[in-house]
Amino acid sequence: MATEGPVLIVGTGLLGASLGLCLQAGGVPVYLSDISPTSERLGADMGAGLPAGAEVLSIEDTFFIPGGTVEAPSLVVIATPPDVAGTTAVKALRRFPQAVVTDVASVKSAVLQDVLDEAKAAGDPSLAARYVGSHPMAGRERSGAGAADADLFVGRPWVLVAGSDCDARAVLMVRTLAMDVGSVPVEMDAATHDQSVALVSHVPQLVASMLAARLEEAPAEALGLAGQGLRDTTRIAASDPRLWTAILAGNAGPVADVLHALRDDVDDLLSHLDAAAAQGPLEGGSVGAVNRVMTAGNRGVARIPGKHGGAPRRYAEVEVLVPDEPGELGRLFSELGELGVNIEDLVLEHSAGQRVGLARLMVDPGVARQAERDLEGRGWRIIAHHGA
Amino acid sequence: MATEGPVLIVGTGLLGASLGLCLQAGGVPVYLSDISPTSERLGADMGAGLPAGAEVLSIEDTFFIPGGTVEAPSLVVIATPPDVAGTTAVKALRRFPQAVVTDVASVKSAVLQDVLDEAKAAGDPSLAARYVGSHPMAGRERSGAGAADADLFVGRPWVLVAGSDCDARAVLMVRTLAMDVGSVPVEMDAATHDQSVALVSHVPQLVASMLAARLEEAPAEALGLAGQGLRDTTRIAASDPRLWTAILAGNAGPVADVLHALRDDVDDLLSHLDAAAAQGPLEGGSVGAVNRVMTAGNRGVARIPGKHGGAPRRYAEVEVLVPDEPGELGRLFSELGELGVNIEDLVLEHSAGQRVGLARLMVDPGVARQAERDLEGRGWRIIAHHGA
Repeated sequence: MATEGPVLIVGTGLLGASLGLCLQAGGVPVYLSDISPTSERLGADMGAGLPAGAEVLSIEDTFFIPGGTVEAPSLVVIATPPDVAGTTAVKALRRFPQAVVTDVASVKSAVLQDVLDEAKAAGDPSLAARYVGSHPMAGRERSGAGAADADLFVGRPWVLVAGSDCDARAVLMVRTLAMDVGSVPVEMDAATHDQSVALVSHVPQLVASMLAARLEEAPAEALGLAGQGLRDTTRIAASDPRLWTAILAGNAGPVADVLHALRDDVDDLLSHLDAAAAQGPLEGGSVGAVNRVMTAGNRGVARIPGKHGGAPRRYAEVEVLVPDEPGELGRLFSELGELGVNIEDLVLEHSAGQRVGLARLMVDPGVARQAERDLEGRGWRIIAHHGA
Repeated sequence: MATEGPVLIVGTGLLGASLGLCLQAGGVPVYLSDISPTSERLGADMGAGLPAGAEVLSIEDTFFIPGGTVEAPSLVVIATPPDVAGTTAVKALRRFPQAVVTDVASVKSAVLQDVLDEAKAAGDPSLAARYVGSHPMAGRERSGAGAADADLFVGRPWVLVAGSDCDARAVLMVRTLAMDVGSVPVEMDAATHDQSVALVSHVPQLVASMLAARLEEAPAEALGLAGQGLRDTTRIAASDPRLWTAILAGNAGPVADVLHALRDDVDDLLSHLDAAAAQGPLEGGSVGAVNRVMTAGNRGVARIPGKHGGAPRRYAEVEVLVPDEPGELGRLFSELGELGVNIEDLVLEHSAGQRVGLARLMVDPGVARQAERDLEGRGWRIIAHHGA
């Protein structure tokens, strides 16, 4: 790895511990610090680094760890909950005057502002010069050092936020860290980052949660009609409330902006649906209003990039009935491998009471027809042949 | 099959043609009628039935088809677009006084009301006695006879809506039809049905579309940060606007009820987020408001039944890194088959620039740990081990 250690990781949750695991595996020495001694020890026991103790940011002068004095870190990664990332980054910048400091909080303006305020108050521009914000897009539905994995960052975007007073050397160090753990670095200013994640992550989370909340009191017979659409739309409603509460409250402005626009769309639609409910389905402009929502949705969803970070791309869909028995999916994918067909994406679809699954395979449009014919030739039942 | 033919299917779109294919395959004679001669012919050419012509519901007395006179249908299935299902059902009830008539529109109150109004106006209770509403939960993102498949209904719920004046014999005939094509019949009154689909299908569709619509004008750099959460939440925003416009306008009342409740939740949250944006993340009650939304979402999503129509059930998740090459998924599933592990559900996860895929396998919690160990023993990289 190109990262120069030692690296001090403050906060041994999922991200901190995963980062430590990965760096240690690459030969970079790591120290861990967490306000929870148990969490810090768990991280250490998993191989994410040596425990340095919760006081490491408050002890002056030498950098002690149990067992001796060690070199001060060249890089400090703040992986605390987002609501304390700013104050912790400031502490680290003051405590280790040679170190570059980054944080991995999923909201970036507030942390940067804390650093800039401190640099101004202290009359010390070096504080701001050594701070770079990070947001590795590697969150998931669970947390804690126990869920750590060295592969967590592989292939994920890692947003780098460099303030205007930031040193090029500091940016390079954090960019190197991102690449060392397999991420794809993306530079962005703090406001753009926060607006972007409000749009593609925070508001979708809130909307999924609010939609799922409507099911809390729903009759069981209604839930029995649920299909894959509802399951997909509400899947992330199972996410951790504690983590998301800190994230969302910390990005209130950009989230509110997107949510206001969405609420205006809901209000417009509702006025027409209310008129249709009172006057009949063809009245009140409801037909036009629903059509506007649906076609705008078509255009919006088409803009979400596929994998490999390319431009939006359409795959052809091949749908195969799969008997619900061990080995059948295996047989399907083995045979697809034999046929040389690469699966770009895949969804398994089930409904209530179903004894077979439906595998929806996204494949290159150029090979879809042949793949369908080949699979049918091998006895698979293909559900649907459809146009572009 | 237990269904007694002939069956007349009016409307040869996806549902009508699929139904015809399935019945013909089971030896039940089927006639097709569509206002589009091309669509009717396509259905016939695919093997869904004999073409009977668009005028079959307006010719009196004998039931002619090209080539001769045939027996009148014992069962008529109206598979037209939902906005003409009611008037078409009424025509069929009058045209074939011995036949049971059902329709497959995804909104049921309006069709039933059309039939009841006609029965009252005509002073002929037999019209209402012979009508049963149906809603096979087998919609998908595409349409037309060309997409027809005899397996479309397998394992899906098929809602039966019998009005209070309905004959038991008529209900039995439609129930038999549903079971013949592999569906799971569920009886429900029209209002309950319409409220249920508003909640689990129509509002999720609108919300997904409105969320995706926010992406229409989004900067490309924001879309580059999109993850699996956004993709899942907006997947159904790709659905057909024409079909959904007719469905949603026809269920305006129940849809508006759910959407009003959702809008109130959005308004409540927005008032707190606006306060937090103005005063700081810990002000304005935003922390409590976001937490309420998230925890209610957790409880709501947990109520969605899993497959096999059982009670909500939690699967354990096993995450495996899969190199992005043909045959690798095949090898994974082959080996899972060899290990006797059944995959309850599966999501393939990709991010921008990724050269490996992440397969998230949902398996029985009792076998998850062993499966992880076995897979690691065979050289697979497992991403995360996590608690219940």
